[in-house]
Formats: sequence, C-alpha cells, structure tokens
Amino acid sequence: MTLILALDFGGTKLAAATVEAGSREWLDYENRLSPANADALSDIEIMRSLIDSVLGRCKPDAIGVSFGGPVDAATGLVRLSHHVPGWENIPLKQLLEEEYNVPVSVDNDANVAAVGEHRFGAGQGYDSLFYITISTGVGGGWILNGKPWQGAGGMAGEIGHIVVDPTGPVCLCGKRGCVERLASGPYMAQNARELLEKEAHNSPTSTRGEILKYLVGNDLDLITGQIVSAAAAHGDELAREVLYKAAWALGVGIGNVANLMNPQRFVLGGGVTKAGDSFWATVRKVAQETALPEVNFEVVRALLGDDAPLWGAVALGLDVVK
Amino acid sequence: MTLILALDFGGTKLAAATVEAGSREWLDYENRLSPANADALSDIEIMRSLIDSVLGRCKPDAIGVSFGGPVDAATGLVRLSHHVPGWENIPLKQLLEEEYNVPVSVDNDANVAAVGEHRFGAGQGYDSLFYITISTGVGGGWILNGKPWQGAGGMAGEIGHIVVDPTGPVCLCGKRGCVERLASGPYMAQNARELLEKEAHNSPTSTRGEILKYLVGNDLDLITGQIVSAAAAHGDELAREVLYKAAWALGVGIGNVANLMNPQRFVLGGGVTKAGDSFWATVRKVAQETALPEVNFEVVRALLGDDAPLWGAVALGLDVVK
Repeated sequence: MTLILALDFGGTKLAAATVEAGSREWLDYENRLSPANADALSDIEIMRSLIDSVLGRCKPDAIGVSFGGPVDAATGLVRLSHHVPGWENIPLKQLLEEEYNVPVSVDNDANVAAVGEHRFGAGQGYDSLFYITISTGVGGGWILNGKPWQGAGGMAGEIGHIVVDPTGPVCLCGKRGCVERLASGPYMAQNARELLEKEAHNSPTSTRGEILKYLVGNDLDLITGQIVSAAAAHGDELAREVLYKAAWALGVGIGNVANLMNPQRFVLGGGVTKAGDSFWATVRKVAQETALPEVNFEVVRALLGDDAPLWGAVALGLDVVK
Repeated sequence: MTLILALDFGGTKLAAATVEAGSREWLDYENRLSPANADALSDIEIMRSLIDSVLGRCKPDAIGVSFGGPVDAATGLVRLSHHVPGWENIPLKQLLEEEYNVPVSVDNDANVAAVGEHRFGAGQGYDSLFYITISTGVGGGWILNGKPWQGAGGMAGEIGHIVVDPTGPVCLCGKRGCVERLASGPYMAQNARELLEKEAHNSPTSTRGEILKYLVGNDLDLITGQIVSAAAAHGDELAREVLYKAAWALGVGIGNVANLMNPQRFVLGGGVTKAGDSFWATVRKVAQETALPEVNFEVVRALLGDDAPLWGAVALGLDVVK
C-alpha cells in the first residue's frame, strides 16, 4: 500500500489528510483555522500537530503540499505568503524532507488546484486547461501537455491581474480594471456599496438596490460578494449590474487567454461561481465574443470545490513516490 | 552532410533555401512574389520551381515549412490562408512527403519564426519566450519548455486579438481595441488619417500633423505605419500620439501576457518595431507597469528580421531528420 500525505497551507486554514494511492476517500482528515496572529512558525507548528494526528504511527511514502502564495516549485522554496508573515524564503520542501525523510513536492495553491481538477475533477482527460478560482481573489493555474506550467519565475496564472478595463476602478495592485478588481467577492461588495452611495446621493427616491439593502438590514458594511449574488437572483437591478460587470470582466479575461494559449478547457471554481445561471451565461457569452471564431474551448465548473488544492497535493505526492 | 530544405509560404512572397546542418549561411536561396491572382495551386507551382532551383540535383534530408496562416502542426494540414484562396484543408506535409520522399514538418509562420529566434536568434538559451511580430498584422508564437506551444487547436499566440481597450476603435475581427487594431502598421496609418481629418474639421488652423501631411504631399492615402513613425521621429505631435497609442497597446498586451504565462523573454520583430527608441521605451514602461512587481521579463529585439520564418523552418527540418 502506498500512503500519501497531503497538506494545504491556505491563507486562513491549515489542513492535512492521508489517502491510499488509487483511492478517492481520505483515510484521515484534519483541519484548523490559522489564528489571527499567526506567523510561519506557528503555522508550521499547527501543521505538525495535524500531521501527527492524521498519520498516527504510519509513515507516508510521499508528501504533496499546496501553499497559499508564490512558490518556486522546482526547489520547493516558499517566496512569501500574502496573508501570514514570516514565510519569506522558507525552504518548505527541504524542511519536510528532513523531518519526515520522504520525497516532498510543493507548489502554489492555484497551480495545485489545477493539478487536482486535472487528475481527479473537471479536467480529467484534458491535457491543456486553465483553472481559475474566483473567490476573495482571482487566480489561476495552468496544465499544458498534461503538466503544470508555473512560468519562468513561478508566477504564471495571474489572470486576476490582467487589465480588461483600463478606465475602470483602481485595484490594490495599482492598475485599473484588473479582472480581480471587478470579479472578486470583496471587490464586488465594494462596487455595490459605492453604487448604493452614489444612488442615494444622485437619486434619493430610486429603488435600485432596495433588495440588497434589505438583505443587510441597511448596514452596507455587511455586504459581501455572496449577498450581491443573492440580491441579483432576487431581481435587484443594482446588484445585477455589479454581477454583470464581474461576469463581463471574467469573460473578457477568458476570451483573451483563449486567443493567447488556446487551451481545451477553462475550469472555474471559487465562491463567486455559485452566483447562478445568468452569471455563467454572461461569462460564456462574453468569452466567446472575445475569442476569435476559430478558437474553440469550453468553460466548465470545477468539481472538487474547496478540496481541489488538497487533492492536487495528493497528485503531487503520487508523482514523487520512489 | 545533412541537407535541409527550408520553405516559406508567406502571404505575398514565396521563398526556398538550402542549408547544411550546423551552418548559418544559405547554400542557395530563391524567392518570388506571389502574383495578385494567386491561388493555392499557383503558389505550389511557383514553390516547386524555386525548390528545383535551390536543390539542383541534390536530395534534402528533411524539409521544414513556414506557412502564413493557421496550420495543424501535428498533421501538417493547412487550415486556410488569409491572403491566398484555395488553401482550405490542404495536407501540405503529406503532399511534400509524397513528392520528395523525406520527412517534412509544417507550422504557422509566427510559431516558426518563434522557433527561428529561439534556435538561432534573440531567444537562444531562453526556454520560455513569446515572439511577437508587429507588421501588417500582429501575431505571436510560443516557446515553452524549449518547444513550440501551438495550443489545442493550433491557434495559440494571437496576441493581436486580445482586447486592451474595450472602448477603442472597432477591429476587423469585430471587437474593439484589440492590440492589432492599435499597433499594426495599416491601422496606425488609418488612425493617423482619421485624426488628421478630425483635426482639419475641428481646428482648421492647427499645425498638428503638419509634418505627416508634408511627408505624403498632402495625399493622406499615402500614409503608412512607417511614415507615421518617420513623422513622429521628426517631432510631429499627431503622429506621436498615434505611435504612443500603438506602443501603449503593445505594452498592455505584453504585461498581461507576462502575468498570465511568466515567460523569460519577449522577442519583438516586424516593421513597426523599427519605429525608434521612444516607441521601445513606451512598450517596456507600460509592459512593466501592467505586470505585477514580482513578474520579471525582458523585452528585446528580434535578430533574424524577415528571415526568421525561414530559419525556423530550418530548425523544424533539423528536428525531423531521420
């Protein structure tokens, strides 16, 4: 029996699981939230206890790791975490190899999720695909010729920061109208708040946004991407405008990527993709209009949900078993 | 001695050349313009006579072919030519293999030029690069892991038709603000003409565009991309505006591609890249601003000029020698 240990260092959550090669059910699974004052050392300490718990007395044959931040996959060196301090230049692969004395493979979470969907999810049988997660951020991971493509410096896949509207609102990255600035959950919420405030100022008697305001009891700080989607589903015109713009941005991004790389499939996951049929219809329509007529592709739902990075880590582990 | 026959079916020009493996000088080289009423059959007939001329009594060990239009590189099937009728679904690789009884490799000209620059030009030693030609059109070719990446349907590399300005002018492809719509030579000329006409209408006494008009003897139909560049170099403000917009579009496109694929190098060729230092400075500056700070890359000049497809064809031929 070949035993794989899969680890997920998310920005807010740590998870460890064990699985036998060939199985699609965890032998054991544990997770814990990263505390508010976490740093790299405390994350590693928590992960060590999760590993102890899922391994018991067993020794894995390999370890696969998904890390929420830029990683040099060739060396398994973490460059940094955007959420937890202290991860700068931590040789995570080396640390784990020394501690557990088995082969280890580490990559960035979007790349690992792409591997997971390719091996076990919506990408099975598709050797060129782009996985996109639309959630608190917008990121992506490539599979080309059946293998992950991380780019020369491990930074490939950043569809969240391609510009689709150079006159659009300013993103945290400093540019205007990035895909992430229009389509991520938190930015959708912000866009809705700003539109509501503008509406209140310009047309105090307007009923646009009434349903959205009702859903948060008039406390605009409570608006989230999910609530914008819910309000849109209930017919709120202002929420629909925000959601349309998100789907439009994603569609333009996907169409541009199709022209550039011509993959077989786009696999979309993350909370924002639960927004409903009209969101999906807009994404697909705009992507098709943006791509050249000769460029064919499908845009499909991810199948593994939040477990995509962990299942991808299983695949990474399987690939380095000796 | 290994002899390679390299063929270039350009949209307007046909060329054939022979070279010994390891050499960087043609043994023989012939080219002819494609006649105005050309079709696939006449192109093939002309090419046959060029081949006879460069081969003499010799038999090549392999043939590499650059074709100006979409090709299925795996089978060597030409899908179509955008310039010459009758090329729809012509099995060019098979035809040449049957006629000359040697291995043949065929690919699209932008992909083949990328291979040429990678093997013999500005891409030597760079195993991930994107070659872009900015000329009558804007196209591109990928080298990833040291090999061409054509995409699932052979359509990868179409940077000319990624949208950088959704409120920009309408492109022949039907979309607004494609890179090609702003940066190709003929569209730069059209943009200059339109600006001149607007200027004449709105501010008849304006001197913007004076140098440009002088260079074409006031016959706006004579404006070309090259003349816009020349006028800009002589200080013409209107021409500078057109050229800046072209460089800006290309820079945004390159920055977006860098975020998405993270290649080591961008290699730029084609007539428009002769526009001068301020054009290059703008391309590089905008590309850097568009890319995330962690994404590193270089933007360099192609070295092989108009011979890039033919040298790429040599590389294709070398790769299939038995």
